[in-house]
Amino acid sequence: MPTQPKAVLRVIAADRPGLVADVANLLFRLGANIHHADDHIDAEANTFFQRVEFALPEGITAGERDRLVEQVGRTCAGWQMQWSLRLADSPRRVAILLSKHPHTALDLLLRHRTGELLCDIPFLISNHPDLEEEVSRRGYRFIHEPIIDGDRRAQEQRIHARLVEEKIDLVVLARYMQILSADFVTPWKERLINIHHSFLPAFAGAEPYRQAYRRGVKLIGATSHFVTTELDEGPIIAQDVTRVSHRDRVDDLVRKGRDLERVVLAHAVRCYLEDRIIAYGNKTVVFE
Amino acid sequence: MPTQPKAVLRVIAADRPGLVADVANLLFRLGANIHHADDHIDAEANTFFQRVEFALPEGITAGERDRLVEQVGRTCAGWQMQWSLRLADSPRRVAILLSKHPHTALDLLLRHRTGELLCDIPFLISNHPDLEEEVSRRGYRFIHEPIIDGDRRAQEQRIHARLVEEKIDLVVLARYMQILSADFVTPWKERLINIHHSFLPAFAGAEPYRQAYRRGVKLIGATSHFVTTELDEGPIIAQDVTRVSHRDRVDDLVRKGRDLERVVLAHAVRCYLEDRIIAYGNKTVVFE
Amino acid sequence: MPTQPKAVLRVIAADRPGLVADVANLLFRLGANIHHADDHIDAEANTFFQRVEFALPEGITAGERDRLVEQVGRTCAGWQMQWSLRLADSPRRVAILLSKHPHTALDLLLRHRTGELLCDIPFLISNHPDLEEEVSRRGYRFIHEPIIDGDRRAQEQRIHARLVEEKIDLVVLARYMQILSADFVTPWKERLINIHHSFLPAFAGAEPYRQAYRRGVKLIGATSHFVTTELDEGPIIAQDVTRVSHRDRVDDLVRKGRDLERVVLAHAVRCYLEDRIIAYGNKTVVFE
Amino acid sequence: MPTQPKAVLRVIAADRPGLVADVANLLFRLGANIHHADDHIDAEANTFFQRVEFALPEGITAGERDRLVEQVGRTCAGWQMQWSLRLADSPRRVAILLSKHPHTALDLLLRHRTGELLCDIPFLISNHPDLEEEVSRRGYRFIHEPIIDGDRRAQEQRIHARLVEEKIDLVVLARYMQILSADFVTPWKERLINIHHSFLPAFAGAEPYRQAYRRGVKLIGATSHFVTTELDEGPIIAQDVTRVSHRDRVDDLVRKGRDLERVVLAHAVRCYLEDRIIAYGNKTVVFE
Repeated sequence: MPTQPKAVLRVIAADRPGLVADVANLLFRLGANIHHADDHIDAEANTFFQRVEFALPEGITAGERDRLVEQVGRTCAGWQMQWSLRLADSPRRVAILLSKHPHTALDLLLRHRTGELLCDIPFLISNHPDLEEEVSRRGYRFIHEPIIDGDRRAQEQRIHARLVEEKIDLVVLARYMQILSADFVTPWKERLINIHHSFLPAFAGAEPYRQAYRRGVKLIGATSHFVTTELDEGPIIAQDVTRVSHRDRVDDLVRKGRDLERVVLAHAVRCYLEDRIIAYGNKTVVFE
Repeated sequence: MPTQPKAVLRVIAADRPGLVADVANLLFRLGANIHHADDHIDAEANTFFQRVEFALPEGITAGERDRLVEQVGRTCAGWQMQWSLRLADSPRRVAILLSKHPHTALDLLLRHRTGELLCDIPFLISNHPDLEEEVSRRGYRFIHEPIIDGDRRAQEQRIHARLVEEKIDLVVLARYMQILSADFVTPWKERLINIHHSFLPAFAGAEPYRQAYRRGVKLIGATSHFVTTELDEGPIIAQDVTRVSHRDRVDDLVRKGRDLERVVLAHAVRCYLEDRIIAYGNKTVVFE
Repeated sequence: MPTQPKAVLRVIAADRPGLVADVANLLFRLGANIHHADDHIDAEANTFFQRVEFALPEGITAGERDRLVEQVGRTCAGWQMQWSLRLADSPRRVAILLSKHPHTALDLLLRHRTGELLCDIPFLISNHPDLEEEVSRRGYRFIHEPIIDGDRRAQEQRIHARLVEEKIDLVVLARYMQILSADFVTPWKERLINIHHSFLPAFAGAEPYRQAYRRGVKLIGATSHFVTTELDEGPIIAQDVTRVSHRDRVDDLVRKGRDLERVVLAHAVRCYLEDRIIAYGNKTVVFE
Repeated sequence: MPTQPKAVLRVIAADRPGLVADVANLLFRLGANIHHADDHIDAEANTFFQRVEFALPEGITAGERDRLVEQVGRTCAGWQMQWSLRLADSPRRVAILLSKHPHTALDLLLRHRTGELLCDIPFLISNHPDLEEEVSRRGYRFIHEPIIDGDRRAQEQRIHARLVEEKIDLVVLARYMQILSADFVTPWKERLINIHHSFLPAFAGAEPYRQAYRRGVKLIGATSHFVTTELDEGPIIAQDVTRVSHRDRVDDLVRKGRDLERVVLAHAVRCYLEDRIIAYGNKTVVFE
């Protein structure tokens, strides 16, 4: 394992010859040692995607680091790229929104505790008080933010204010059972991850397990995606399925689905934290 | 492996106490030796399903066999069951309909040749002449039944007549790319199996791989189902999925999907031939 | 969902005609309503296996219940069966043994808390003190039972005494990192479930993830099995695998494997609690 | 899809800063347009791997092409790389060795016929005459090369001579049931792919399905690997598994395994033909 600080550069650009060489040269000149490089070209869209994980030079100073970021920015601007450079110095700040189903939220906390998710989780917010004890006894802060007098907009604004105030980078909807308004969703574009308990686009909307049971499918699924203003239509990050049979009733689907939801959501969050996801159009490139 | 002739009894009935005992007693009195018995109760629908695989008594005569069938019928009638008793004396007769994609049809032929599918396949019918050579060189009869002057109805009637004349038990749509009319479908209820190249109900209709590509899913699937008059809405028999990524273009999805389609369709056909499927409502019980 | 008390009968016997009918008649005469019945015949071993899940008659008295058990016993004895009848009146008592890896143990506790595992968990025992806080804060009793002065035998005896005293039905080794002696294992035959972090029989013994990494496999697995006196050789209950690639280092295998271990172990424990497992020879029948 | 000729460069080298930039620059100067680039670093072994798929400049002449290859060679030599540059001008030549099980060989032929495997297959060789008709009727050349008077060495030499004479690039053992000697294997290092019908390293050697049945595993697998002089110990290219239960007898495992073997072997061959595999030590990097 490298002991030098790590960095991840992600870029999107119109695909032109020389682009790969230019990025590679830049990083070389900056003294970076590349650990992993993945690129992808969407030929239909003539778009180039790259993720480069590299170690900064040993003993780099804060000033040198700033110059490095500046030079990367200049090069990327030259190619009209969209780019993001993440220096692994400060962990990302993640907030979890939940309602009454504890399994995905508590699973994220367990993974956080055991070092699998490298981030800070300053608090969890719920529209219900039910899970306060479960969350608190694990040593995390639980905030109850109910919808008062049916005023969803006000509740959303209070949540938004807290997220901003606490400098949250990523919001995870861990079976948060409210449909968020476009006003809430828009500023968190590509920083708001949901877990939907079906294999989207099958069974979007309410009660997917009941829908699956009625249709008599032989597999059920879970889908983690960025939230957009179109319900259950955002870019898909991760999906998985498991086998069911005629013996499974709705509550069996719910139980089997819980394992899927936990694994799929955790995987998406982990990919996000490791800067493996690039969203474009209504899709994602996930460099695994 | 048993050397005695095998039989499979399938029943559906309203669930009442005593039913299981009555069927078991009947088979015992008839001298049957039960090899496998599976039952299932759909509690919501209060419906009982059973599949019993048993060996007939050694040296049973044709007359005794007829009486056995009669007695089973009487018992089942007494419980107001729907039932089917299949004696494994004569193989089922299967016809395959295909168009231009050879992979599922040729795969079924290979499985038939190697003894995996115990049935007769007297012919394959296509609306296109393209695959005649591939089919014929494998030693199977290929019938070209084109749509002439756009008259689909007449073509369907010619196909139907052939199926009836040849006493076909099961019709398999191995990527047959015509939508069959309700007139054609209705008499083949629960004897007409299709392979749809998506994880239904996602991506029903035309060009599912293209739809999947556009939506950016991370898994693609295939679904085998009984055909009903509602397109892609019939009872699902088997489904499977495989992983895809941003690197996969539409033609990669098509290629990966071919393996799914082959395995899923063959599985459904095999379950049918072994009398493992009971359709009810718009679902199936598949005793595997 | 049935509101009457449920019962599960499991039997193993030499396969003879009439056996199925006799069991079915017995249950019918006793007024039982069968919910599920699965049977299986191992033709090579000429052995019959059955699991019947049924509801007792409504309003059955304690005395009637005792007679029912007695009658079942008599019938089973008549067929020289091994049998077990479980009345779902009192939950089973489960003890968890763990060491330093928390994930499988805490996962079982979460499933227990959310009602997925119907049992009592009176305590967890560890040879290390490390996880005391994690366990206690979740409201479970943690017992530290260290190996003192290298005397493993004495430690095992203390653990055994506690298990007996607390009338434990099932002992779960949730990544308990000590090899238990034959003296300990023998009295817990078929009541002692382990999770091994590989796809057995590949990579038995120590450090399976490191072994898997060295061999360059493309899938890693986890195996839950009954513990016998032969290390990692007991009857397998459940297995699953997940995909890995050249990009995964040993610590990635460990991380990916944790999800497998949790799901596979929980599945095995659940099957046990629902009386779905019948062990015979060095194998299991698992009626799912 | 690109219409320009494609090329694939694969390299292995000790990992040093500047390597990525140097390769990227080289390709840029040569006028190549990179379509995909994957790299990987094995930190333990301090080894760098890269696969670059690129289009040659439009209208490149034969002479320019030769110079390009020369320049690549010079650059790679400068970094002490092992390298391979494949220009997609002439398809690879593949020979298939088989015995009596037709499924994997015929499956490869079907994929070849439908354009999924881009290569020439000048002949198939078998130590048994049984499959001659099946192969020939599909329009491929079948060569019967039996072991005469027990002289395996002579038979191997005759096969080797044919492979050399026909300029074969890749030899595929499609259930070829003879153990090949070190003398045969050595010259085909990393060009000889086998399918083993188990999840290696479990159940190496003879009759893996029978071994799996006896052990009572809940999953069976198939493994495709490069053949080395150590039986079933060569670098693994691809693996997959499928679920089995107590209901499956040995012949069910064989049947289910056939689907695995076909898919896993075809996948390995396809990765080979697309230059996606880099073998090193006893492992593979497979850039998918």
